[in-house]
Amino acid sequence: MNVLKANRMEAFSDGVLAIIITIMVLEFKVPEGHDWNSLVDLVPKFLSYAVSFVYVGIYWNNHHHLLHTVHSLNGKLMWLNLLLLFSLSLVPFSTAWIGESSFSSTPTALYGIVLLLAAFSYRLLQHEILKQHSSDSDFVVAMGRDFKGKISLLLYLIAIVVAYLNSWVSCFFYVLVAAIWFVPDQRIERVLRNRSS
Amino acid sequence: MNVLKANRMEAFSDGVLAIIITIMVLEFKVPEGHDWNSLVDLVPKFLSYAVSFVYVGIYWNNHHHLLHTVHSLNGKLMWLNLLLLFSLSLVPFSTAWIGESSFSSTPTALYGIVLLLAAFSYRLLQHEILKQHSSDSDFVVAMGRDFKGKISLLLYLIAIVVAYLNSWVSCFFYVLVAAIWFVPDQRIERVLRNRSS
Amino acid sequence: MNVLKANRMEAFSDGVLAIIITIMVLEFKVPEGHDWNSLVDLVPKFLSYAVSFVYVGIYWNNHHHLLHTVHSLNGKLMWLNLLLLFSLSLVPFSTAWIGESSFSSTPTALYGIVLLLAAFSYRLLQHEILKQHSSDSDFVVAMGRDFKGKISLLLYLIAIVVAYLNSWVSCFFYVLVAAIWFVPDQRIERVLRNRSS
Amino acid sequence: MNVLKANRMEAFSDGVLAIIITIMVLEFKVPEGHDWNSLVDLVPKFLSYAVSFVYVGIYWNNHHHLLHTVHSLNGKLMWLNLLLLFSLSLVPFSTAWIGESSFSSTPTALYGIVLLLAAFSYRLLQHEILKQHSSDSDFVVAMGRDFKGKISLLLYLIAIVVAYLNSWVSCFFYVLVAAIWFVPDQRIERVLRNRSS
Repeated sequence: MNVLKANRMEAFSDGVLAIIITIMVLEFKVPEGHDWNSLVDLVPKFLSYAVSFVYVGIYWNNHHHLLHTVHSLNGKLMWLNLLLLFSLSLVPFSTAWIGESSFSSTPTALYGIVLLLAAFSYRLLQHEILKQHSSDSDFVVAMGRDFKGKISLLLYLIAIVVAYLNSWVSCFFYVLVAAIWFVPDQRIERVLRNRSS
Repeated sequence: MNVLKANRMEAFSDGVLAIIITIMVLEFKVPEGHDWNSLVDLVPKFLSYAVSFVYVGIYWNNHHHLLHTVHSLNGKLMWLNLLLLFSLSLVPFSTAWIGESSFSSTPTALYGIVLLLAAFSYRLLQHEILKQHSSDSDFVVAMGRDFKGKISLLLYLIAIVVAYLNSWVSCFFYVLVAAIWFVPDQRIERVLRNRSS
Repeated sequence: MNVLKANRMEAFSDGVLAIIITIMVLEFKVPEGHDWNSLVDLVPKFLSYAVSFVYVGIYWNNHHHLLHTVHSLNGKLMWLNLLLLFSLSLVPFSTAWIGESSFSSTPTALYGIVLLLAAFSYRLLQHEILKQHSSDSDFVVAMGRDFKGKISLLLYLIAIVVAYLNSWVSCFFYVLVAAIWFVPDQRIERVLRNRSS
Repeated sequence: MNVLKANRMEAFSDGVLAIIITIMVLEFKVPEGHDWNSLVDLVPKFLSYAVSFVYVGIYWNNHHHLLHTVHSLNGKLMWLNLLLLFSLSLVPFSTAWIGESSFSSTPTALYGIVLLLAAFSYRLLQHEILKQHSSDSDFVVAMGRDFKGKISLLLYLIAIVVAYLNSWVSCFFYVLVAAIWFVPDQRIERVLRNRSS
């Protein structure tokens, strides 16, 4: 199966992620007025766009790293990758809703659910790729604990519930998880660096 | 003609498929309300989106496999490939209509017609590529029977007619065909595996 | 300058062309009704979409061939390529207008103007690339007469004027030019084939 | 870290830039009427689109050149690149607003702010890449003065303020900066040429 290289999966994923990250700007409808006040309504949309842009950027970065560890491609890997893209394709809608509603409870909770779904899909994909490595390989050891992955899921769950008490606290959690993941996956970088040294 | 490699045809197809699969989410218009009830109207849209996402994913997967068997590129192949992309470009519209109308008869039938058109274009493309292989090659033998391809066309035809009796039965057929094709084309994988062993 | 390969220009052009060819389907707004009659209004849109799809496909095909003859990339080539992409980016708008107005005179004329602009940009790009070849090279000889290119410009001009007499005759001309170009540029293919033999 | 090549960052950037440059045409809504007069309202939109198309083209060209000087990829570079893409993703909105408002003061000023943000992000990215070269390398010397970069920032600032006196003067400045940058970064080309000679 090595005949079918991972390149095209990467290219397709990049295409979908590039579109997801860009169509969110289509939500910035041109306002009626022509002064700064007309932009006030766009502020929550802009904030939610900025956070979602960072999230899709994080997924792109880590996806980039993760796919470099793929040994061989198969149907299951392709479908898990498509599941991740499907989850992320729901980000523009929930971003628009959270922005449109100025961070109301339900849209804020839905945003967390979409992020949870994406994180879960990513973990499934990562798990499937790790299975291609022997259980004592440096990758498996490095990824095994996966503290960031687990804490993210927990923070998303908390944020979803908290949205009904105070949606700003939820948003703080979303920004917090983004901050945790801001740095690309150092674990993979470290292993790659160790190998080449 | 071998000078002009299949790479760019692959890249262009990936681009178009990535856009097709992603612009469907533009149909999820942000609802007026800000609670879970406001999402109820989006449920049929979401279901039809999910099915269409899987269908485009299936085409991407199999297209990926099929193009790996291309020996040389020519104008006819390019146009058959564009015909396939044209057919698939109609998926977002029929997905939106089926979702908007909550699975009424005519939109459900049209959805089947579009899928039939795509399946037919795919078969034409596959047929043209097979002609590049000698008639007793393992590829031609493997694809020759093409049971899945033929049964799909039949199921689409049934689904189109049945849409006027009960559109849910049609939808069941669409999901059924998707399930049949869910696994990427094992026939090509098997031949490639045999060759390298 | 050979250091900067033509690959990225190809990739970027493919991206833009893939988007242009796909966003035209966004014009197919979901109709109010749920029966076949509701689709009647979409027929002119569908026809104009189909023709434009073929046109963008033709440009993609020939652009694909043309770029294979580029020796080295420079700023002028990049900008002529962007001019071509700019011209083609106006196709979706004029396609939508011609479809929306059911082939009225002015939209039909504008469609011809956009096609004329694209054809003219393509010729400029082709001319610049030919300058990289010595004047007695097989490419320059093969492209020199360029009968198809010249007759297309003439047919567009006629179609633009005729639009005010009978827009259907103009449309016939547009389809005629598309038919002339349907086959990818045989001249380049022939030269490449001769060389390798 | 050299293991992770810059290719995918280029491909992703190209995808995003291709979408940014193309979705601007979605702002050309089909007019009600079917004669030339109906297009009059679109003239300011068309002008702002043309200028923005050139700007995104300039960024694509220079980005193309700049990335060829990258030695190794790291997280910081990726995020600075995403910051640049984020800034440029705001271009379609401000282009639409400036066009919709027929060059009113505030939209014209906002356009300058977005361009300033993009220019600033580009400089940060360039600065980070230059740090990978030794301080006496020909690249660093060539880019060090960076007259065009500095004068652009100044002209944007002036244009933003002037927008409240006369927005056409601002627009003149935007066109002026575009003209300055129209030619791809000769400095990098010159260094590459010197090296290969």
